Amino acid sequence: MSSSSPSVLTKEDIGRKLATVYAPIAAELVEAERIFAAELASRFPFVQNLVHHCADFRGKRLRPALVLLTGQACGALTSDHPVLAAVVEMIHTATLVHDDILDEAFIRRHAATVNAEWGNETAVLMGDYLFTHAFHLAASLDSTLACRWIGHATNLVCEGEMQQVHNRGNIDLDEAAYFEIIRGKTAELTAVSARLGAHYAGADAATVEAMDNFGRDLGVAFQIADDVLDIWGDEKTTGKSLGTDLDKQKLTLPLIRLIAMSPPALADRIRHMVAEPTAETREELRPHLESSGALDYAWNQAKVYAAQAGSALEILPESAAKGLLRNLTHYVVRRSA
Amino acid sequence: MSSSSPSVLTKEDIGRKLATVYAPIAAELVEAERIFAAELASRFPFVQNLVHHCADFRGKRLRPALVLLTGQACGALTSDHPVLAAVVEMIHTATLVHDDILDEAFIRRHAATVNAEWGNETAVLMGDYLFTHAFHLAASLDSTLACRWIGHATNLVCEGEMQQVHNRGNIDLDEAAYFEIIRGKTAELTAVSARLGAHYAGADAATVEAMDNFGRDLGVAFQIADDVLDIWGDEKTTGKSLGTDLDKQKLTLPLIRLIAMSPPALADRIRHMVAEPTAETREELRPHLESSGALDYAWNQAKVYAAQAGSALEILPESAAKGLLRNLTHYVVRRSA
Repeated sequence: MSSSSPSVLTKEDIGRKLATVYAPIAAELVEAERIFAAELASRFPFVQNLVHHCADFRGKRLRPALVLLTGQACGALTSDHPVLAAVVEMIHTATLVHDDILDEAFIRRHAATVNAEWGNETAVLMGDYLFTHAFHLAASLDSTLACRWIGHATNLVCEGEMQQVHNRGNIDLDEAAYFEIIRGKTAELTAVSARLGAHYAGADAATVEAMDNFGRDLGVAFQIADDVLDIWGDEKTTGKSLGTDLDKQKLTLPLIRLIAMSPPALADRIRHMVAEPTAETREELRPHLESSGALDYAWNQAKVYAAQAGSALEILPESAAKGLLRNLTHYVVRRSA
Repeated sequence: MSSSSPSVLTKEDIGRKLATVYAPIAAELVEAERIFAAELASRFPFVQNLVHHCADFRGKRLRPALVLLTGQACGALTSDHPVLAAVVEMIHTATLVHDDILDEAFIRRHAATVNAEWGNETAVLMGDYLFTHAFHLAASLDSTLACRWIGHATNLVCEGEMQQVHNRGNIDLDEAAYFEIIRGKTAELTAVSARLGAHYAGADAATVEAMDNFGRDLGVAFQIADDVLDIWGDEKTTGKSLGTDLDKQKLTLPLIRLIAMSPPALADRIRHMVAEPTAETREELRPHLESSGALDYAWNQAKVYAAQAGSALEILPESAAKGLLRNLTHYVVRRSA
């Protein structure tokens, strides 16, 4: 039933998988992994088994890395940083588990989703289990600040997700509404990750604010890129079910742009394809997305936000960590290569 | 689509609905309602509509009442008490919304469940929205204590729920496992409600501990009674879909007892009925549950826990609030009348 992979990422794993990006924070990332596993440990084998399984969903460690790298770039890491890194990763994992229910997805990082393997009911509860443990862990810090910031961010994440579900099948969704949704569902959590990293390293208010902007723009870039890959990517490379946005009649930037720039007759045909998607829809849309330039437009928007995130880093003194944060802004728009 | 009922319970509503039980804390309960609505308010009409709808699910206000009445019985209420009352009610409402997905229930307090009206996806997100806002609200207090206690309780609530789902269709579930499940899924939240009420009123450690025990035993009594009513009750009186435990092959105390005390052939027949329930199963089981005394046994267990809860109150000086808490121990085992 369950995967036998370890839930704690060892130094060797990090070294192998994420060497170039995260090497200087490897020790703190390992500590965050340990905290993550310790917080979620359950005396019930059924629950523990699920914890192990979900640990494998996490690949890039983007949010923990943001906490740790912004912390290092803004000052010195404290023992609070790995705790915060574990908290944001737990929140993120909770949203993945619940998203897979919404998307009826079967594969996540080359493993079965919780809903596919154990059913929707267990997936609902497993997401809840991750959420509550995240808040419980955040409350282990000295002040309520992290709980407040993370609670506020998660409030907006949920609102963004609800707006997205509400707009399913809305073939008239425009760019403004799209950006509002992804700012909530994705960028709030990356923003708060960077903000927390900076604040807990003792950064001044202006720097904390700049890191918030950095995380927010990086999140927007990341989500646009993710949406492009869902239409355009390769299942083997991304390790998850693709075309789920289409299946779920979820309009994302490439399609919104394509509809907006197409002559009325073609726009109507595309709207119809999106409203009643089939197994071939993704392939049928590709030539239109490419020839119209809509895909390039979306990809370029991701690059614009990534570059904006890069500019927000200018407030920081040069350091290895700052260099790695800059690399992240390049990485998020290069994942498809 | 949505209910037009107010989400804020007015003094008149409380006076009408809950007059005898909660009158002395009516002002604080109204304040808790105001905080509840203010915390959950959304600028998105779709979300706000759901908030209004879910506010109607809440009937007895048992958990907020526990916070406020234990506070009043242990000392003096502070401005933190209505906040804590709103937090525990929000957590409770979140579990209701998610439980209705698990139970595939259609009716909750005479209204449509979120899953029935808006689908499972919206119900997943609405539960998450309630959870995150509860933690965000708890973090508005001065220290992390409430976040820690509530986080810990919610951790155990989720674990209890997961054990319950894991044991669906387990026709060999015994009393010990049943009690372990309900101690998690129900009694942790009533325990922490009473504990918080006492602590924030300045009670000493022994009194806080006694209130924890009070809330815990009350929760166990309440859940047993709820499980008895699910098999034995009347849909009109309870205001929700009944027999869902049977539909979901969830063994509860009356059936566990019936199987344990039946001769082997009858026990096997009952196990078979539970393993493959039909629309008639509830009615078919009734005579067995009554003649065997299994129903009386379960009801009596509820009374034992209610009485134990009553004993825990002895540490308190006499007061109107203490009298009301004692009334609650009678009320939870009298709901079926």
